[in-house]
Amino acid sequence: MAKVVLSINAGSSSVKISVYSAEQGQAPTQLAEIQVSGLTSPPAQLEYVRGDNTVSKDEKVKGKEIKTQNDAFKFMLEHLAGDKELDAIKKKEDIAITCHRVVHGGNYTEPQIITKDTYHHLEALTDLAPLHNASALEIIKSCIAEVPHARNIAVFDSQFHQTLPKHIYTYPIDLEIAKKNRLRKYGFHGISYSFITREVAQFLGKAESETSLIILHLGSGASACAVQNGKSIDTSMGLTPLAGLPGATRSGSLDPSLVFHYATNVGKLSPSSTKELHISRAEEILNKESGWKSLTGTTNFGEITKTASSNPTNKLAFDIFVDRICNYIGSYYVSLHGQVDALVFAGGIGEKSEQLREKVMSEVGCLGFEADETLNGKKIEDVVQEVGKKDAKHKTLVCQTNEQFEMARYCAMDEKLFA
Amino acid sequence: MAKVVLSINAGSSSVKISVYSAEQGQAPTQLAEIQVSGLTSPPAQLEYVRGDNTVSKDEKVKGKEIKTQNDAFKFMLEHLAGDKELDAIKKKEDIAITCHRVVHGGNYTEPQIITKDTYHHLEALTDLAPLHNASALEIIKSCIAEVPHARNIAVFDSQFHQTLPKHIYTYPIDLEIAKKNRLRKYGFHGISYSFITREVAQFLGKAESETSLIILHLGSGASACAVQNGKSIDTSMGLTPLAGLPGATRSGSLDPSLVFHYATNVGKLSPSSTKELHISRAEEILNKESGWKSLTGTTNFGEITKTASSNPTNKLAFDIFVDRICNYIGSYYVSLHGQVDALVFAGGIGEKSEQLREKVMSEVGCLGFEADETLNGKKIEDVVQEVGKKDAKHKTLVCQTNEQFEMARYCAMDEKLFA
Repeated sequence: MAKVVLSINAGSSSVKISVYSAEQGQAPTQLAEIQVSGLTSPPAQLEYVRGDNTVSKDEKVKGKEIKTQNDAFKFMLEHLAGDKELDAIKKKEDIAITCHRVVHGGNYTEPQIITKDTYHHLEALTDLAPLHNASALEIIKSCIAEVPHARNIAVFDSQFHQTLPKHIYTYPIDLEIAKKNRLRKYGFHGISYSFITREVAQFLGKAESETSLIILHLGSGASACAVQNGKSIDTSMGLTPLAGLPGATRSGSLDPSLVFHYATNVGKLSPSSTKELHISRAEEILNKESGWKSLTGTTNFGEITKTASSNPTNKLAFDIFVDRICNYIGSYYVSLHGQVDALVFAGGIGEKSEQLREKVMSEVGCLGFEADETLNGKKIEDVVQEVGKKDAKHKTLVCQTNEQFEMARYCAMDEKLFA
Repeated sequence: MAKVVLSINAGSSSVKISVYSAEQGQAPTQLAEIQVSGLTSPPAQLEYVRGDNTVSKDEKVKGKEIKTQNDAFKFMLEHLAGDKELDAIKKKEDIAITCHRVVHGGNYTEPQIITKDTYHHLEALTDLAPLHNASALEIIKSCIAEVPHARNIAVFDSQFHQTLPKHIYTYPIDLEIAKKNRLRKYGFHGISYSFITREVAQFLGKAESETSLIILHLGSGASACAVQNGKSIDTSMGLTPLAGLPGATRSGSLDPSLVFHYATNVGKLSPSSTKELHISRAEEILNKESGWKSLTGTTNFGEITKTASSNPTNKLAFDIFVDRICNYIGSYYVSLHGQVDALVFAGGIGEKSEQLREKVMSEVGCLGFEADETLNGKKIEDVVQEVGKKDAKHKTLVCQTNEQFEMARYCAMDEKLFA
C-alpha cells in the first residue's frame, strides 16, 4: 500500500519539504515540494510546486511571522494539509512517515526511527555538531507533537562514511581522549554521495559494488569523496563539516592554530550560544564568518565566477576554490590507485558552473580527465550527464543530486523503517 | 680570506653547532660539529666531531648544569674555543659569523643580519610562532653578548616559500584581519628544501630553474613541498609548522574545531607560558601532545615501523603517516601538472626508513613512481641516491639534507652577508 512520506531538510535559513508517495521496496514518486526560505532576512518567502505545476514562487509570506525553522515547518505542514488539490494529504493524519536530514549521526550506520523515548539518542549527538544538528532536532520535536501518528526517521549525512578505514578516520591524537569525546573523522554530505553513487553506477552500466568514483559535492557547503567499489574510503569533511574544502562562509581546513591568532577569547562561548547550544567563538568565526563570502562579500559563487576576470578578489576566491578541489582530486586519485570510473561534479556549483568544471578538468588533465567543450557547455537536464571528452582516459560527469529523494528512498527500501 | 662560520640550530631538546671555514662565493668546508642533546631528559649529552674524528660520543656532561638551549650554546662555545686541536678557533674572537636557524621569518625573503638594534625585528615574529622561534632568539641574544665582534645572521625556514602564489598562501578568511594579524600560509623546512633542490638538480644534471620536484622532508617534524622550476609553489605547513603532515608529537591538519571538543579552556594560556611567551593550551595539545607519540608512546618512528607487523597501534600510526604523505604526493602531482623530475625523500625518516619509502612508492604507483627493491634496500651514503626503478615514468630519490651547511652557504654566497 502506498504511503505518504515527507522528506524534511532544514538548512541554515530555509526549510524544504518534499512529499512522496512510496510503496515498500520501490523508488518513491514525488507529489509536491514546498520550501520556505529567507528566515535570516525576513519576510520569509514561499515556493510551492505540486506535481509539475509551480503554484507559488518567491511569494512573500504574509500574516504570519516566520522566524525559525520550526515556524517554517509548521506553516508548510498547514499549507500542505490545506491544499485541496493535493489528493494524497487531506489531513495531517495522511502523513505516514516523516524523514529528517540530520547532519551528524555519530556512529550510526543507518537511519533511525525516533520516538519521544529515543529522542535523547539524537540529543547526545548535538554536542558534536551544535551548529549543524540543532534545527533538524527542533523540527523532529515539533513533528512528534504536531503529527504524532507519523513515524519519524532520522537520516544521517554521516552514515555513508561509516566504511572509512581506521587509519583514515583516526586523528593522530591521544586515543583515550578521542574515544571518550568521540573525536574522529565522520564525513558528511553522505545522503548526496549515496544518491550519486547509485545513479552514476546505473549510468555507467556497472554494479555499485564495482564502481569507483571521485565525487565533488560543491555547494555553499562543499566536500569531496573517494568511493571505491561503491563504498566511501575517504572524504574531506571531518569531525564536523568544517574540515576540508572552503564553503560560502566556511574556511575549510587551515592551520588549526590560526584561529588563536585571529581573535582573542576564541575558546569562549559565542554570544549566539544558548543554554542547550554551546558554540565557541572560534567555531562561529570559521563556520559563519569565513569562506568566499569573507573574501568577496557574496555567498553567490556564480556571481564570483562571472566577475572573476575583472575583479581580482573574486578571481582569488575562484582560484582558491579550484586549487583546494584539485588537491582532493589528486589525493583521492592516489587513494583509488588510479582505478577511477569517473570524476563526478554535483551540488549547486558543480551542476551550474561550467567555468569551474572546465578549469578543474584542465588542472587535473595530467591524471587523464579532459573537458569536452560542447558537452560541458550544455544545460544539465539529465540526472547524470557527461561533460568530459569521450576518449579521455577517465570519464567526467555531472550528477543532479537529490537528497530529498534519497531520504524517502531509504525509508521505502528498508522494511524495518517502512512497515 | 677564509672566515669561520658557525651554523647554529636549536631544537626542542638539543642544540647543534657546525663549524665551517668559508670563502666568499664558495661552498663552505666543515671543520667540526658539536651537539648537546637531552636537555629535556638530563644529564645532557655531548657529541663532538672534529674533521673526520669523533672526539666525543654520547658523553654525559659533568660538572656543569645544562638545562636550557642557551646553557648548551655557551658550553659548546667554550668547548670549541678550548679545543687546542681545532686550529681555526683559538679564541672566541676567531668566529666571524654565527648564523642561526630561525623557524618563522614572517615575510622575510632572505637572511637578515641581526644586531642589538635590529633584534626587535625578530621579536616581532615571536607572536606568530612562540613555540618555534623562542630558543633561537635566546641564543642570538646570548651571541650578541658572548661573541660581540661576530656577525649574527638569522636564516629563516620560511624564506624559501616566499614564492608561493597568492591563491596558495591566502586562507579563505576575513582579509583585513588576515592582513592585520599576518595570517597566511608561510611554510617551513625551507632551508632543507633549498639544499635539496640544488643538490637534486645537480644530480639530475639540470639547471635548478628547470627542475620540478615533490620533496618530502620526513622527520619528527614532517612536511611536503612542490617545487616548480626551482621554486616552492606549495607546501604542507601553514601559518605555523602545525599544519599538514603529522609529526612525532604534532597532529598535523585536522578539523580546526576538534581542539574545542578535546578539552575545555583550550583558548586559555598553557601553564608553560611565560610573560614573553604566549602559548594557548590548544597549541600545546596539538604541537606537543599529539602525533605518533600520542598513538604509540614513542617518538621513534623506526621503532614503530619495526614492530608494525605485530603491534596494531604501531601499524595504525604507520598507516596514518603513509596515507597523509600520499595525499600530498597526489595533490602536488596535480599542482605540477604531472611535470615532475623526481619524488625526493629526505629527513631522518625519509633517509632511514626503506619500509616507509617502499610503501609510499607502491601506494603512488599509479602516478608513475616505482621502488627498485635493490636500490631502496641499499645504505644511503651519497648526498643524493636513487631508490626508484630506472625505467619508471618518474625518478624517486633520497637526499641527505644538510641544513647546517645550507645556512653557512647562504652566508658565503651573499656578499652583503659575508663581506
